[in-house]
Amino acid sequence: MKISHDAAPGPDSIRATMMEAAAAARALTLSHFRTQLSVDNKLSTGFDPVTEADRGAETAIREVIHRHFPDHAIIGEEWEDKTTGSAFTWIIDPIDGTRAFISGVPVWGTLIGLTQDGRAIAGMMEQPFTGETWTGIDGTSTYRRGETEIQLKTSSAKSLATARATTTTPEMFTGPYAAGWQAIHERVLQMRYGLDCYGYCLLASGHIDLVIEARLKDVDIAPLVPIMEGAGGIVTTWDGGRAEKGGTCIAAATPELHEEAMEVLREAMLA
Amino acid sequence: MKISHDAAPGPDSIRATMMEAAAAARALTLSHFRTQLSVDNKLSTGFDPVTEADRGAETAIREVIHRHFPDHAIIGEEWEDKTTGSAFTWIIDPIDGTRAFISGVPVWGTLIGLTQDGRAIAGMMEQPFTGETWTGIDGTSTYRRGETEIQLKTSSAKSLATARATTTTPEMFTGPYAAGWQAIHERVLQMRYGLDCYGYCLLASGHIDLVIEARLKDVDIAPLVPIMEGAGGIVTTWDGGRAEKGGTCIAAATPELHEEAMEVLREAMLA
Repeated sequence: MKISHDAAPGPDSIRATMMEAAAAARALTLSHFRTQLSVDNKLSTGFDPVTEADRGAETAIREVIHRHFPDHAIIGEEWEDKTTGSAFTWIIDPIDGTRAFISGVPVWGTLIGLTQDGRAIAGMMEQPFTGETWTGIDGTSTYRRGETEIQLKTSSAKSLATARATTTTPEMFTGPYAAGWQAIHERVLQMRYGLDCYGYCLLASGHIDLVIEARLKDVDIAPLVPIMEGAGGIVTTWDGGRAEKGGTCIAAATPELHEEAMEVLREAMLA
Repeated sequence: MKISHDAAPGPDSIRATMMEAAAAARALTLSHFRTQLSVDNKLSTGFDPVTEADRGAETAIREVIHRHFPDHAIIGEEWEDKTTGSAFTWIIDPIDGTRAFISGVPVWGTLIGLTQDGRAIAGMMEQPFTGETWTGIDGTSTYRRGETEIQLKTSSAKSLATARATTTTPEMFTGPYAAGWQAIHERVLQMRYGLDCYGYCLLASGHIDLVIEARLKDVDIAPLVPIMEGAGGIVTTWDGGRAEKGGTCIAAATPELHEEAMEVLREAMLA
């Protein structure tokens, strides 16, 4: 691990940079959302609105970050990593949930996170169509929509039997993940599909109690970790490690619920 | 079938009644959406926000309909049917997608439809959080959000191989429905979960090309039929009948796509 010599940016400058970057991305993503371009059209014209929006938005986000923090590293989905000697790395996914985006469903989001020596210290998710943002900075998580501003707190759900759970699709749990997924699925109160980043944010908001996923990339999860942690949530990989690198993920509203889920996963994976 | 002797209400009075009824329901549903009441709380207090919202909203909708069309029959999810001698029956579901509602996901909707001798002639879906409405009246379908008003047209997708498909959950296809579901699932470009009524509306909007479901009630689908048909979509049961009664449902953006899906279903169910 790299030792952090750089001065840590203050929470206000992190928040301002994230807001500015999200606003720059919004112009690109919203103008390509629900463009009614069918896949047939795409095949004949060679124009892919998601790729266009994704690349344009990531470029816009990178420009804003570079202007404020020229020495920081940047990892994104669409363009090559910007590596510097800095302990601080921004990690961005301009459109998390491309299938939702393609289908016109407003549960995709623009993810912007900041890590220090690999650990997520700040994160933001913006859903531009609904006008919602979730931020987690300096141990506090906040939801904003228009005039509404709410400090976030996860739910008090303590057992799988009462948990409202979600995962983007059951189809991510093939191979080694099938048994663990099945064991959790059997025990929760309800399982909801199709949410991508929106599910993690609803956990921070107290409306969902458990998120279980696998096959995540770092950009899919790192920006969401501080949002959940700042609201009191617990998020780790299935083997209890930090979640920033991606792979498997289990996020819970309370330590008790997380512990029960981990125990169920351990038993299922051993069997 | 009953013969229709009543005078058919005009499109403007149908639309006005639907808008007024949806507005009355909105106050009840929105005030109970995202109330952060965990299931643990519910068990201890005996208070269920969804049931409260559902019942209150249905009562409000019924009052508006009764005021405008006292002779019409009404079928709803929460209260007993109002039967009259009329050929016209309103069919309402105050919160379609209760799991989405419970989890804070804005893809549930208030459904209000009108049937004449069992055939859907008008329908509306309102998503109050996003502020969107879809209406289908007199062969024309319209999307409204704030100042935006769009006349709807389904996509031009003609083959399963290029179809963006959706279903609320793969778990509805147990027993006799498994083979048909599997055959469609294997052939489409992408399958998206978790949308309830929102999926049918996105089909009318041209963003989704195919919806496949089973185990529907009449209130889940009848109000959505005119929205899809007025946009050029084709919607039937899996055996090609009218979809208003519920059961299975296959909705497609074009006649060609519907025909291919029906052929795949027929072959899969025979095998």
